[in-house]
Amino acid sequence: MADERAADAGIGDHRFVDPALLRRALTHRSAGSPHNERLEFLGDALLNLFVAEQLYQRWPSADEGAMTRARAELVRESTLARIARDLGLGERLTLGPGEMKSGGHRRDSILADAVEAVIAARYLDAGLEACRELVLSWYLPLLDALPPPNRVGKDPKTRLQEWLQARGWPLPAYALLAERGDEHDRIFQVRCTIAQPPLSAEGEGTSRRAAEQSAAEALLAHLA
Amino acid sequence: MADERAADAGIGDHRFVDPALLRRALTHRSAGSPHNERLEFLGDALLNLFVAEQLYQRWPSADEGAMTRARAELVRESTLARIARDLGLGERLTLGPGEMKSGGHRRDSILADAVEAVIAARYLDAGLEACRELVLSWYLPLLDALPPPNRVGKDPKTRLQEWLQARGWPLPAYALLAERGDEHDRIFQVRCTIAQPPLSAEGEGTSRRAAEQSAAEALLAHLA
Repeated sequence: MADERAADAGIGDHRFVDPALLRRALTHRSAGSPHNERLEFLGDALLNLFVAEQLYQRWPSADEGAMTRARAELVRESTLARIARDLGLGERLTLGPGEMKSGGHRRDSILADAVEAVIAARYLDAGLEACRELVLSWYLPLLDALPPPNRVGKDPKTRLQEWLQARGWPLPAYALLAERGDEHDRIFQVRCTIAQPPLSAEGEGTSRRAAEQSAAEALLAHLA
Repeated sequence: MADERAADAGIGDHRFVDPALLRRALTHRSAGSPHNERLEFLGDALLNLFVAEQLYQRWPSADEGAMTRARAELVRESTLARIARDLGLGERLTLGPGEMKSGGHRRDSILADAVEAVIAARYLDAGLEACRELVLSWYLPLLDALPPPNRVGKDPKTRLQEWLQARGWPLPAYALLAERGDEHDRIFQVRCTIAQPPLSAEGEGTSRRAAEQSAAEALLAHLA
């Protein structure tokens, strides 16, 4: 089994000189030593640096707070787990029998840790430039899709309110249009209306607040 | 004033190609733009990486938790402020009038931020290797002085207890020897005694707990 893996010792086009490093990066601690926890520690630091320098370069006038919020979104567990799924890392993980049975290869935390460990493995195998290249191959689309610095990490209602306040325009109004479904499976439908520019948009959610956020998000899409 | 500084554009032996970068790193936001907050964001990520890779290399069998605790101690504000004082950064800071009057050049948070900003300035000025070299020139003595991985970041009483438990030996006893001083300025004196090896040590503090920690620390020094 180890030999089969060694024959495919890469992440995408990135081949590993030392396949054992990649194997370790894909070994969860439930499978015994050597596992990926130490690599995860190092990979987390590398990821933080690469994302920080990208934000620093791309946003020459953003303040520290905006960069910190953007980085938090980019390196959070759910983002890393999505990258792991895109790479098909789940099926390549080595897990202990308990984790295997309980579906550990689909769990966000295990997938996210494996991504960080792979980053460190690439660094130890091929150096900083090769590692940065791998990380940016995952992150450039995410970086390109970031909202402007002053909107990152804020919820849609806050962003909409700030956008209107910055122009001295009236604040939005939210109206509950409908509630449907059983008591334990309720769906709320809300309309968000602004006077200037005269626009409205609707949103749904499992709480009134979630529906308002969804409506604000839909309205912001008209303003962007 | 800017010209005088430019003539001395370095940190220790590390000269800057672009003196404006170093000036910015030493400019607090209270002095207006451009200030050092963005550099601090980038420098924090660089510092975390350099310390992480040192711990990873030096402690080949430490677990992630020990490395995380050690890093937290090494990059915390008080450690960075001490580095700033050793470098004499305080006198070189540019502060706004308010911060100047209130002694901002002596404040830990301002000094620590300046150290992180200087790290980023060095990176942007001379690249990763030169930056790592600067950071390690400050950190090698601190790294060399770290306790073993399993003792880092734990308080002295906990470390002493674990040391004794690992050997199956009796736990320490703490005795209050004296209390002195006014009600609002009390000093406690405590003795820590262990049966095996037969040792005792004393400590003082402004609370009973602090005095116990100090006594445990003194006793650990005999065991090291």
